[in-house]
Amino acid sequence: MMETSIPSRTALLIIDMQNDFVLPGAPVCVAGARGTIASIKKVLTYFRARHFPVFHVTREYRADGSDVEKMRQAAFLDKHPCVVPGTSGCAIVAELTPLPDEYRIIKNRFSAFMCTELNLILRRFGINHLVVTGTQLPNCVRATVFDAVCLDYEITLITDGTSAQTPEIAAANILDMANIGVHCTTADDFLSPD
Amino acid sequence: MMETSIPSRTALLIIDMQNDFVLPGAPVCVAGARGTIASIKKVLTYFRARHFPVFHVTREYRADGSDVEKMRQAAFLDKHPCVVPGTSGCAIVAELTPLPDEYRIIKNRFSAFMCTELNLILRRFGINHLVVTGTQLPNCVRATVFDAVCLDYEITLITDGTSAQTPEIAAANILDMANIGVHCTTADDFLSPD
Repeated sequence: MMETSIPSRTALLIIDMQNDFVLPGAPVCVAGARGTIASIKKVLTYFRARHFPVFHVTREYRADGSDVEKMRQAAFLDKHPCVVPGTSGCAIVAELTPLPDEYRIIKNRFSAFMCTELNLILRRFGINHLVVTGTQLPNCVRATVFDAVCLDYEITLITDGTSAQTPEIAAANILDMANIGVHCTTADDFLSPD
Repeated sequence: MMETSIPSRTALLIIDMQNDFVLPGAPVCVAGARGTIASIKKVLTYFRARHFPVFHVTREYRADGSDVEKMRQAAFLDKHPCVVPGTSGCAIVAELTPLPDEYRIIKNRFSAFMCTELNLILRRFGINHLVVTGTQLPNCVRATVFDAVCLDYEITLITDGTSAQTPEIAAANILDMANIGVHCTTADDFLSPD
């Protein structure tokens, strides 16, 4: 442990900060996402400086739609295909480009734990505390946080490092997560808890 | 199929309508839950009359707390143990008592799909549409609904058959679920869609 009070068995999750979800005008842009990049970068820089593990979680869909949720499949095929591997929209936003030694987790559903190897790797490292950032709050962020609670992780949600289509949706989701015991804080307060 | 437009591959889920969550003064009472019994009963009666499958999903915790989420374990042990098998608080409310031929699913976490046999049984029956009722909206109901979306079920949420601690929390959660394609409707509108 260094000068921080953050326990060493902590990992950072950055969820779905891909061009298709973040860039204005992208097919499935989350309105609030771009505004969170600076806060996420601040936390990411902190983790990198201390060599704490970082997990970049991204959504991917096959171009033929075979792994898209049934409820979303028609929209994906007919209106706005998105996060197809190899496209620029699938890439993580430039500001948060992973370093070669950081972990990548690819998911097809909301939760970063559903049908992925995330829990296996976290257990291997003995991690018991997750710092969660990314987009969007009502779907992938929240589903991941609730699964993490079920799997006995402690969770810190970086409120200004997560986003939704409206501030009202963001606030309602943060309230629900705080109500089940998730620690919700800003990036600055997380990094300087005094 | 009878006179209804409800497809035959539909099942009803009733989530956590147990005395400890529903009765006023119970240790972990959800304020809005008791007020939903009549609507749930209406839908339940409809399913029973047509011999459509009904799943009563309940939460249980061992008295020693070994299966309680870590984040809740201290509160469970020190302040308010709840839904321990064999206690009256664990029982389903009298008005919704299961019939012998109805299915019971016991879960230890939020989602009715996490570490349970629910999906196996639904697949066996070829069910592709779930009608969801119970409590509470931000936690078990929502986690179940999001998992169901991920597992390719169509979902109808009975808005007046689900509940939260406040109407504002209920409304925010219903909005988020509608936004991902969940059909949200009242019991009356579901039963008489004209």
